[in-house]
Amino acid sequence: MTNPVTKDRRHFEDLAVGEVIELGHTRVSKDMIITFAREFDPFPFHLDETAAKASLLGGLASSGWQTGALSLRMLVDAFLSRIASCGGLGFTDLKWRNPVMVDDTISGTVRIADLRRSASHPQWGIVTLDFDIRNQDDKPVMTMRLANLVECRNAEAAA
Amino acid sequence: MTNPVTKDRRHFEDLAVGEVIELGHTRVSKDMIITFAREFDPFPFHLDETAAKASLLGGLASSGWQTGALSLRMLVDAFLSRIASCGGLGFTDLKWRNPVMVDDTISGTVRIADLRRSASHPQWGIVTLDFDIRNQDDKPVMTMRLANLVECRNAEAAA
Repeated sequence: MTNPVTKDRRHFEDLAVGEVIELGHTRVSKDMIITFAREFDPFPFHLDETAAKASLLGGLASSGWQTGALSLRMLVDAFLSRIASCGGLGFTDLKWRNPVMVDDTISGTVRIADLRRSASHPQWGIVTLDFDIRNQDDKPVMTMRLANLVECRNAEAAA
Repeated sequence: MTNPVTKDRRHFEDLAVGEVIELGHTRVSKDMIITFAREFDPFPFHLDETAAKASLLGGLASSGWQTGALSLRMLVDAFLSRIASCGGLGFTDLKWRNPVMVDDTISGTVRIADLRRSASHPQWGIVTLDFDIRNQDDKPVMTMRLANLVECRNAEAAA
């Protein structure tokens, strides 16, 4: 059965281990940091400049979860919205390496680290994606690994 | 040196492996789902009811990253804002087990799985926290493990 939404997109069979996806850029403003932190991560070092200066982060910095969400959005724009993606399964090995400060610009790459067919569902494959997110000075800010489901073009041709 | 903000809170030495933190409850509305997805995870199954019904999720469901952010917020309210927390280090083993649908209520528990002093920074300890997030029918929706830095009351008394 062909999915009318995804039929013209790249499917599992069209992906290759080692492919590198270049992400766009996102500038992280003070307003973005405070708005996100108020809803999800209301610590003084994400909300208040004076408190942030006295903290481990040394200044107002984004919630690490916000850095992850913004990185995910860059991957949707550059890759996931262009393939026959059916959703994420989970993350592992998420590490925050340096804080994202007010007006930093984040960008980076995502590399296809692994591809395997689902044993139980031959219509799906699982793509493993390694994020390397950096700031404008090329300092690493976050790494993580995502497992994402992708439709196979040919469900019968399981590897 | 005593931190004036955290001095009356529980410190690393006051935590015990096996302690279970009961989280509050968060009802996930259609507006919350669409607002978050527009910014961070703009897939049709998080934005449009008709498209969502035809998808793997079977109806409008929250972004998995939103479920994580809401769970983090519940942990801040129930625990992290009451201890001498200095911020998260990273996550691992995040798995989405069932989708969170419109008007579901999520809640759950977080268990202290491990406690260790930092080898390089005797003023800090690392608490490992296992999340078990469930919906109103007690079905699991997400599990994940957080490593979080906590101030030690006594930096000299490293275990």
